[in-house]
Amino acid sequence: MEPQEIMRAYKEKIEGCLREFFEQKKKALEHWSSREACEILEEYTLRGGKRIRAILMVLGYQLYGGSGDEIFRASSSLELIQSYLLIHDDIMDESDLRRGKKTVHKIYEDIHLKKGFGGRPHRFGENMGIILGDLANAYAMEILASSNFPSERKVKAIEKLNEIIEYTGYGQIIDIYSGMVQEFGEDDLLLLHKYKTARYTIEGPLVLGAILAGASPEGLENYAIPVGIAFQLQDDILGLFGSEEKLGKPVTSDLAEGKKTLLIIKALEKASEKERKVIESALGNPAVTLEQLERVREIVRKTGSLDYSRKLAEKLVSEGKRALNALNVKNQEAKDFLLWLADYMIKRSY
Amino acid sequence: MEPQEIMRAYKEKIEGCLREFFEQKKKALEHWSSREACEILEEYTLRGGKRIRAILMVLGYQLYGGSGDEIFRASSSLELIQSYLLIHDDIMDESDLRRGKKTVHKIYEDIHLKKGFGGRPHRFGENMGIILGDLANAYAMEILASSNFPSERKVKAIEKLNEIIEYTGYGQIIDIYSGMVQEFGEDDLLLLHKYKTARYTIEGPLVLGAILAGASPEGLENYAIPVGIAFQLQDDILGLFGSEEKLGKPVTSDLAEGKKTLLIIKALEKASEKERKVIESALGNPAVTLEQLERVREIVRKTGSLDYSRKLAEKLVSEGKRALNALNVKNQEAKDFLLWLADYMIKRSY
Repeated sequence: MEPQEIMRAYKEKIEGCLREFFEQKKKALEHWSSREACEILEEYTLRGGKRIRAILMVLGYQLYGGSGDEIFRASSSLELIQSYLLIHDDIMDESDLRRGKKTVHKIYEDIHLKKGFGGRPHRFGENMGIILGDLANAYAMEILASSNFPSERKVKAIEKLNEIIEYTGYGQIIDIYSGMVQEFGEDDLLLLHKYKTARYTIEGPLVLGAILAGASPEGLENYAIPVGIAFQLQDDILGLFGSEEKLGKPVTSDLAEGKKTLLIIKALEKASEKERKVIESALGNPAVTLEQLERVREIVRKTGSLDYSRKLAEKLVSEGKRALNALNVKNQEAKDFLLWLADYMIKRSY
Repeated sequence: MEPQEIMRAYKEKIEGCLREFFEQKKKALEHWSSREACEILEEYTLRGGKRIRAILMVLGYQLYGGSGDEIFRASSSLELIQSYLLIHDDIMDESDLRRGKKTVHKIYEDIHLKKGFGGRPHRFGENMGIILGDLANAYAMEILASSNFPSERKVKAIEKLNEIIEYTGYGQIIDIYSGMVQEFGEDDLLLLHKYKTARYTIEGPLVLGAILAGASPEGLENYAIPVGIAFQLQDDILGLFGSEEKLGKPVTSDLAEGKKTLLIIKALEKASEKERKVIESALGNPAVTLEQLERVREIVRKTGSLDYSRKLAEKLVSEGKRALNALNVKNQEAKDFLLWLADYMIKRSY
C-alpha cells in the first residue's frame, strides 16, 4: 500500500477498536455518572486526529516481522494515552476548545451551569477533567495488558509506555519553565523536543510495536529521535509562518503563548538591541498584533534563524533516513512508509 | 508477629524500598527540573502515612503462600498510586496542607512566588501538581512491571491495579456529584464506599498480593468489601463525633465540606422539619460553628442514625470475618492479622 493509503486504512481500524472498547466498557458500568464519564471520554477520543502514534506502533510491529490484526487493538491504547495527556493539557492551558469542540473540563463546566449546581462551575469542570484524564490512562493500560500477546512482551511494553509517559511529563515541566526562566537555551529546547515530541510521538510508538513483535529494536532510536525533533522544528516553523486556515488557530498563537522556539532563541542571539526588544514585546503578549507578528517574522528571517531551523530539520531527517537504511528490518513496506514519513515531516504545511 | 508489630516492621521495609527507588531514579535524570520534580515527589510520598495499602498487598501475598522480600518492592508501588491520587485530590479540594506539610501544588506555587515568575502562581502550582501526580502513576507502574515475578502474574496485577484506579475514579465522580444532586441516597453512598474505599484500600491490595502469589483469590472479596465499607462508616463516625486532636483537622471539617455521609442521610430521613433545617444549614456551610455541630450531633444521635451506622459497620465486620474464616488459606499469621484488622477498623478512634 501507498503511505497515504496506510494512513487512511490503519486509522479506520484503530478507530474501530476504540469504538468496540467503549461499547464493552459502557455495558459494564453500574452508576449513571460513570457512564456519563465514559461517554464523554469516548466522544473526546473519537472526535478526530490522525492517529499517528497508534499507526506508528502498528508499523514498528510490522517492521520487525509482526503480522495479524491484534496489534491494532493494542495500539489503540496510545490514543487513550493521547486523550489522557490532552485532557490534562487543556486544563493547564485553560483551553475551551479541542479540535473544534468543547474540552472535557468545559463540557463539565457547562453541565454544572445548566443544572444550576452549587459551588464554582470552573472548579467542578477542572476537577472532573483531572479525573477523566486519569480514567483514560487506566483504560489505556487495561487495553495493553489485556491484548493477546505473550506476557513477557506485554510487561516490557507496559514498562516502556510508562517510561514514555514519564518523559513526556518531564518535557511538559521543561516546557512550562521555558517561558519563565531566563537561562533557557538551545540545549534545554532540544531536550524538551526529545522528551515531549520525539520520544512520545515517534520513538516510543515504534519501539512499543517492535517489543510486541518480540524484537530488541536497537538502532531504531537513531531514526526516530532525529525525525521526531525535525517534526517539532517544522511544527514551530508552521506556528510562526503558517496561515490561520491551515493551522486551525490564530497565526499569533505561538507568539502570544510565549513559546521559546528555536526560531526565537536563535533570532534573539543574533538580533540587534532594537530587534531584541521587538521580539520581547511580542513574546508572551496575549494582545500581540498581526503587525508585531510581521516584524518578528522579518527578524527571524533576517538573522538567519529561519534558515538555521530549516537546515537543522533537513539534516536531522537525512540522519534519520540513513540510520533506518542501515537497519536490518523484515518488512519493506513498513520501512518505505517510515522513509516517506521522514520527508513528510518537513514537507507538510499543516 | 503480633499485628501491631507487623504494621511497624512492614511499614519500615516498604519505606526502605521507596527510598531506594527514588535514589536510583534521581541518578538517571538529565534536567534540573526533572530532578526537582522527583525530589518533591519523594518528600511527599515519604512524609508519613500508615502504608496500609502496601502492607495489605504483602499480606495478600503471604495469605496465599507467597514468601520472600521482593513483594515489599512490588507493594511499594501502591504508595506511589496513593501519592498520585492524593496530589490530584489536593488540587481538587484546594488544600494547602497534607500531613501537616505543603501540598505539591502549594510547593510549586511558593516556588513561583519566590522566584517572581510571570503569570499566575496558582495556575502554575496546579499545573505542576497535575503533572507530578501523573509522574507518580508512571513510577508506580514501572515499579510493578519491573518487579521480579513471573510475567503472567505481573500482567494480571497491572490489569487489576488499573481497574482499581479506574473504580476509584468513578467513586471520586460519585463523591463530587453527591454534594450536588438531590437524589443521593443510601445506595449511591454504599457504591461510593465500595469503589473509593473498600476496593481501593482493602480488596484491591489484598487481591494484588494474591495474584503475585499465583493464586485466584476467589471469595476474598467477601472479606474485603464489607470490612472496607465498615472502615469508611467508622471514618465518617469519627469525622462527626471525633476530637480535633485525634482527627488532625477541625471537627467541623466534614460538615463544612458538605459530606453526605450515611449518618447525615439517615438522620435527614428520620428528622422533623425543624431538625432537617438545622442539618441543612450546617451541611456545606464553610462557616459552620461548634454550636451547630453540637446540634447536628444531637439530631444524629436522637434519630437513631448513629446507632444505624454503628450496627451496620459491626454487621459488616462480622460478615467479613466469617467469610475469611471460611477461606482455605496458607498462612495463619496473615489470616490472624486480617481478623484483627477487621475488628480494629471499627474500634479505632482515629
